[in-house]
Amino acid sequence: MSNSKKVAPISGFPEYLPADRIVEQSIVDVIREVFELHGFSSIQTRSVEPIDRLSAQGEDTDKEIYVLSRLAGGAEQGMPRLGLHFDMTVPFARYVVENAGKLNFPFRRYQIQQAWRGERPQEGRYREFTQADIDVIDVDTLPAAYEAEIPLVIADIFDRLPVGEYVIQVNNRKIPEGFYRGIGLDASVGVIEALRIVDKLDKVGPDAVRDMLIGAGATDEQAGACLALAEIRAPDLSFVDRVRALGVTHPVLDEGLAALSAVIAAGMAGAPGRMVADLRIARGLDYYTGTVYETQLVGYESWGSFCSGGRYDALAADNRHTYPGVGISIGVSRLVGLLVGKGLVRASRSTPSVVLIALANDNVVARLASAAVAKALRQRGIACEVAPTAAKFGKQIRYAERRGIPYVWFPGGTAAGAGESSGDEVKDIRSGEQVPADPASWQPPADDLRPSVVRSSGAGSGTGGESGAEK
Amino acid sequence: MSNSKKVAPISGFPEYLPADRIVEQSIVDVIREVFELHGFSSIQTRSVEPIDRLSAQGEDTDKEIYVLSRLAGGAEQGMPRLGLHFDMTVPFARYVVENAGKLNFPFRRYQIQQAWRGERPQEGRYREFTQADIDVIDVDTLPAAYEAEIPLVIADIFDRLPVGEYVIQVNNRKIPEGFYRGIGLDASVGVIEALRIVDKLDKVGPDAVRDMLIGAGATDEQAGACLALAEIRAPDLSFVDRVRALGVTHPVLDEGLAALSAVIAAGMAGAPGRMVADLRIARGLDYYTGTVYETQLVGYESWGSFCSGGRYDALAADNRHTYPGVGISIGVSRLVGLLVGKGLVRASRSTPSVVLIALANDNVVARLASAAVAKALRQRGIACEVAPTAAKFGKQIRYAERRGIPYVWFPGGTAAGAGESSGDEVKDIRSGEQVPADPASWQPPADDLRPSVVRSSGAGSGTGGESGAEK
Repeated sequence: MSNSKKVAPISGFPEYLPADRIVEQSIVDVIREVFELHGFSSIQTRSVEPIDRLSAQGEDTDKEIYVLSRLAGGAEQGMPRLGLHFDMTVPFARYVVENAGKLNFPFRRYQIQQAWRGERPQEGRYREFTQADIDVIDVDTLPAAYEAEIPLVIADIFDRLPVGEYVIQVNNRKIPEGFYRGIGLDASVGVIEALRIVDKLDKVGPDAVRDMLIGAGATDEQAGACLALAEIRAPDLSFVDRVRALGVTHPVLDEGLAALSAVIAAGMAGAPGRMVADLRIARGLDYYTGTVYETQLVGYESWGSFCSGGRYDALAADNRHTYPGVGISIGVSRLVGLLVGKGLVRASRSTPSVVLIALANDNVVARLASAAVAKALRQRGIACEVAPTAAKFGKQIRYAERRGIPYVWFPGGTAAGAGESSGDEVKDIRSGEQVPADPASWQPPADDLRPSVVRSSGAGSGTGGESGAEK
Repeated sequence: MSNSKKVAPISGFPEYLPADRIVEQSIVDVIREVFELHGFSSIQTRSVEPIDRLSAQGEDTDKEIYVLSRLAGGAEQGMPRLGLHFDMTVPFARYVVENAGKLNFPFRRYQIQQAWRGERPQEGRYREFTQADIDVIDVDTLPAAYEAEIPLVIADIFDRLPVGEYVIQVNNRKIPEGFYRGIGLDASVGVIEALRIVDKLDKVGPDAVRDMLIGAGATDEQAGACLALAEIRAPDLSFVDRVRALGVTHPVLDEGLAALSAVIAAGMAGAPGRMVADLRIARGLDYYTGTVYETQLVGYESWGSFCSGGRYDALAADNRHTYPGVGISIGVSRLVGLLVGKGLVRASRSTPSVVLIALANDNVVARLASAAVAKALRQRGIACEVAPTAAKFGKQIRYAERRGIPYVWFPGGTAAGAGESSGDEVKDIRSGEQVPADPASWQPPADDLRPSVVRSSGAGSGTGGESGAEK
């Protein structure tokens, strides 16, 4: 096993030290807990799909796919050519079709897994990353109420995460679609192309979008109307009147306004202050057909969306049915990349242990005594470890200190090493306070029981946040 | 997204339906919980390593490695050629060397991740699989006590899992090594080669092993002594006298007997009845230098070991230090493959939801009422979901029934649909009992709160187990 080859990080494949990994775990734990509280079932799909399935998913994805081959060479008989999935959506669609006869519809599932894209890493974009997805999928038709439910799940999660202020931006694809049809843009630029152009608004600004629309065949007036629509943003139902004031009518626009109103109204009731109607949100992917979502952290807008998704009429189809659904995906790696990378959040210690059991002697009796204390504590859910050697107690305390373990337990008390065993004692090494303790009943304060993950002091919302970083 | 391509499982890449996934999750949860109770810190390494690092690990692994390439073709500048890791040990060794300056030693870490091997799948062997590893690693020297601690962690886990009877088999590589030297086998067959041959005992039987040893240069008497040593198996310290009775002496043998005695003694104290000294256990890999472990489920010996590991003197090395350690790896996928695949264990329902909130009407008021109940229950940790549509209550109850959701909640009572709203009521659909309930205080029985994972009736230990299968 020994080797002295050069070791180095690989760009786009982030790894964390134990304390930062605790932050990542705690985020995933919160996400999973809330997904389950909302009645989503876990599934885990294989990491690979046949290449022809992966590369069938739109124009831009081919170059991102990692293909597998065996180092020894040679395809195995009967095995398709495989690649790593680049999202959860393609494998989930396949899973639904494959297991349609065994699943209960509407099917509420969550999936927290890694995905891979062979593209150049950037801030918040990685080659290997973790996503946490929920979808509700049904057969042939899907109740509209789910489009209002999905962002409430996300608000429930983000309210529990140390992310500061955030905003869930919601739109309905039927609004721009109906609007573009209403002004006749479908005959020139085309609806999908216009959506694509307006979607670049954040990146390139209104002037460039206007130029692109005109370049694609829009009139000056049409381009102006598109931009006026995209500027509408409201935390309540006032967006409807503002759209109406633009004087455009189309039945698809009416449908979209009614649907978005229902989602925003549910948000005002269930997650007040968390959702806004934002009519510029389109999502790049062209399979969304109704509500679409993006989520920004206030002050970190340049990182892009931390949670996106929408409604689609056909996630998948087989010979007999289509499977419409609505879903959303939390970019776990991007979230951790921001919170840990910028030092906005930190864990209170680098180990689950809340107690170090000191070792008074290196003999068998002392070892068994320390092991018995550890066992008694663990049976009551208290994470602990026994000191590696019977070093001087000062050194054993430093072992705890370096790891952030708050308590050191002395079987027989601190005088035990000198042969004077009395009762057990436990020391809070932060305060120095040392008290008698019984392994069958001693309980650490609830705040100490598990490592806590806290917003660093000074990490407010917004760009001032980094000042409190401890990295 | 729509596609009608043929969908099919891929051999060696197992996937589960939601109820079976709950079994898998519960197993991983128990493993993680116990790892943390014993003070192991989580890390997660990237899924890829440079090919030259992966393929440096011994003779048989080359053919198993999945190499990555980008579908668009072309290596990216500055990127090494990458492959998927085939275990946790290679990436962990690299992580330790890479982060040695930032880790606290002795470093106790756990790692629950997937790994990939491009080999032909068999019973309990997959191309994509999950492993749960713990290791304690130190700088230059490692206290021997950790070799006794590791199997106690495993016993603590297996005692909590629905696996039936199991046995952790322990040996120390110094025992056969010292013994083989003591009978002069090192000069002919060689110690490593003799270990390899004896390791095949379970597969090929004693006669074939004897022939192979003699074929490799052993005398008849030497081969007989090797087999006599390998036959020794004891749940207590009696193995020492049985080895002594073979009349072989060597200082390395003495070391091995003392070390194994310490591990077995700790097992007798900390996990009585769970560990046996089994002198045939050698582990195929040649980097183990001290204690080695394997774990069998009684009645399923043909599945091989579910948990293996050992002590190594140099997991890794850099220019200044070596990193000795001791570790063990639970084959999570093999465990789930057995328990789920053979129907030995099942989940009580296919969703986390314990309550379905019925919908009395499809109007906004009824929706908000049901959403408010759901929110109140979730705030107290009760997983639930709202019915998709205001179908007849009988149909809504069947929605719960099909998923195994035990309770249906009626906001305003079951007469609410007819316009007569009284107080809320909740129905246990198993017993039919329906009682008034307040979303601010109602609590399901603890056994119902989460899906339970139970041994199927009739799944005893051993080969009779399958009779209770419900697959």
